[in-house]
Amino acid sequence: MNARTEAHLSALSPAAALAALREASPLVQCITNSVVTNYTANALLAVGAAPAMCDIPGESGMFAGIADGVLVNLGTPTAEQRDAAREAVRATSRWVLDPVAVGVLPVRTALAAELVEHRPAIVRGNASEILALAGEGGGGRGVDATDGTDAAAGAAQSLALRTRGVVAVSGPVDLVTDGERVVRIHGGDALLTRVTGGGCSLGAVMAALVGVCAPFEAAVAASALYAVASERAAGRAGGPGSFAVAFLDALDAVAQDPAELDARVADALAIR
Amino acid sequence: MNARTEAHLSALSPAAALAALREASPLVQCITNSVVTNYTANALLAVGAAPAMCDIPGESGMFAGIADGVLVNLGTPTAEQRDAAREAVRATSRWVLDPVAVGVLPVRTALAAELVEHRPAIVRGNASEILALAGEGGGGRGVDATDGTDAAAGAAQSLALRTRGVVAVSGPVDLVTDGERVVRIHGGDALLTRVTGGGCSLGAVMAALVGVCAPFEAAVAASALYAVASERAAGRAGGPGSFAVAFLDALDAVAQDPAELDARVADALAIR
Amino acid sequence: MNARTEAHLSALSPAAALAALREASPLVQCITNSVVTNYTANALLAVGAAPAMCDIPGESGMFAGIADGVLVNLGTPTAEQRDAAREAVRATSRWVLDPVAVGVLPVRTALAAELVEHRPAIVRGNASEILALAGEGGGGRGVDATDGTDAAAGAAQSLALRTRGVVAVSGPVDLVTDGERVVRIHGGDALLTRVTGGGCSLGAVMAALVGVCAPFEAAVAASALYAVASERAAGRAGGPGSFAVAFLDALDAVAQDPAELDARVADALAIR
Repeated sequence: MNARTEAHLSALSPAAALAALREASPLVQCITNSVVTNYTANALLAVGAAPAMCDIPGESGMFAGIADGVLVNLGTPTAEQRDAAREAVRATSRWVLDPVAVGVLPVRTALAAELVEHRPAIVRGNASEILALAGEGGGGRGVDATDGTDAAAGAAQSLALRTRGVVAVSGPVDLVTDGERVVRIHGGDALLTRVTGGGCSLGAVMAALVGVCAPFEAAVAASALYAVASERAAGRAGGPGSFAVAFLDALDAVAQDPAELDARVADALAIR
Repeated sequence: MNARTEAHLSALSPAAALAALREASPLVQCITNSVVTNYTANALLAVGAAPAMCDIPGESGMFAGIADGVLVNLGTPTAEQRDAAREAVRATSRWVLDPVAVGVLPVRTALAAELVEHRPAIVRGNASEILALAGEGGGGRGVDATDGTDAAAGAAQSLALRTRGVVAVSGPVDLVTDGERVVRIHGGDALLTRVTGGGCSLGAVMAALVGVCAPFEAAVAASALYAVASERAAGRAGGPGSFAVAFLDALDAVAQDPAELDARVADALAIR
Repeated sequence: MNARTEAHLSALSPAAALAALREASPLVQCITNSVVTNYTANALLAVGAAPAMCDIPGESGMFAGIADGVLVNLGTPTAEQRDAAREAVRATSRWVLDPVAVGVLPVRTALAAELVEHRPAIVRGNASEILALAGEGGGGRGVDATDGTDAAAGAAQSLALRTRGVVAVSGPVDLVTDGERVVRIHGGDALLTRVTGGGCSLGAVMAALVGVCAPFEAAVAASALYAVASERAAGRAGGPGSFAVAFLDALDAVAQDPAELDARVADALAIR
């Protein structure tokens, strides 16, 4: 086992990745939709990152050059955000694409096709979105996943090979692939789908981790964190409103004490 | 009693309307203001609808054609949102207009006058807004109601006759009219006015219900749901912050078990 | 001691300022960033003000003329918001400038330099932002303060003399100056920096208080309120998510019973 392989294996530890995140407090630029800006910023702060929602032309590209990670989420892509996204992806390779509702709606579908050529480090979406972006599905009916995670496994792998990056498919079971490796992360709680911002903020946390570890490890660690934190929050929640609050508390708590994440991913690897 | 009348009477039951909503999970497009996007999406998810904040030109009209209900809220009407609203109201008849602060501010006042010609299924506002939209008042001082609900009863009826739709006036007592019928829904808690998004998300829930029942029944059911849920949340809240959270939990709980709403509306009808 | 001096001394009481706010319920216009609109509106409602996020050209200037106080926050300055800000500052002298991330990003840095010539009643920022706006620093790395409050004391004083207004520097210890007087407000809790919107909503509360008392008293009262409310909320919070909720509850509670704020500021004055 050479040094590089060893580094990769150790970087695979979500606990190590989250500790690195808290140590570095990466600056994360978010070009994201108007529904989830607040929740996304709070999720980033909870895990120890420093969010900055810099999303106007004339500032976005410059900021992407100094940010440790960049999220481009296409949920409500105004004309200014579309230009800001174009600037940003030219300025950095450490960016995550969240192609919200592509395949359904024409403006963002065209933009996603354009942006993906700039090779996002990670694409994160639900199965419908990944199928649509890979050219293999007709899209869902908006932000809902209408296809199961595994139905998008092939599309995710071919998309990852095309971008030479990582693709993360979110669902009841999360799937992360770089085209060769495929990892499934089990767990989580359905309450995370009963509040807005769960998936969108997950993409932002991946962008934070891209600042401190390799994209594959970043996507796996963020998915494991969300699975564990959502289970913990569900145990304290009396409904979706209190779940959203408890989830931010749980992100903070698990990020401070992430040891249990390693077992979760070890299991995921063992059952492949 | 013919079948149509019978269907209408049974549809009047808020419990039946909310059960239909949870069964259908209607797709609700929101063109709404930047302050309440998150809370509105969470309120829709809590009651069992599927929100999509699609609000840019080039996507809005197309999406309105597939959405089960559309909300057009004029709270922070950017140029893109104004064009998106124009697209949407041409593509559907199942839309709700929330004319935030019309009468006070010129851009939205002109837009509201233009949009209302496209006959919203429901107009929802406070008394000042309904008076202004009907051409009978000078508007409030923004989002505040400065007139009592009943002061707008005549304006609401004439506006409903003009749009051949429903007008819902929100206040300490809610009033819903289609120009002929007038229902008042009592109850609710003043804490709902101490957090932002109470009224705006009510309009969104009406848009969700417009996807599964007639507009009059939709407006009545949503108003009754908000009255009961806000009372329940107030009993659990230690202030406006915890009220906003408890209210989302209460929307979820009452929508799952809506039986008590029928008694509330039966009382409202009995005391007419 | 003449009447004017006496009025100023009594106005210095944060308890009196907050009582005046609750009595007047000032209308506060916010041109602010997309991340914190909701939290800012809820903070204003919690303290007893009436928020209105009027931020489009053609409405902003007119509304600023009737608002009791105006916030201009440069966090995500779209082209429409930039024009709206220009309109607003021409229409009122009761406005607060929050120069988010100036010095780092070119569009907002140029805009801030232009707006500051219209003499904001209060400039509120962290030390890095105040240093950058005063032309004495290179800015932070976004919304983070990378300089201590006292490092910006000289810059704050020279900026206050230039605007003939008040400058408030937020940090572990807050500093407020009108160029001659300097007050430090101790206390607060670091959890306020672990959620988004703490500083931004503080600027909005200053804008509300500018509607009912002099700018110096407004900045001091708002800073004292935030120190006390954040301490109280931290005692009830299990993490950043529940802190954000508890802080709104605490703003409401302390604004209703603000007596302890006077002791806090008296101490601040005594230790100068």
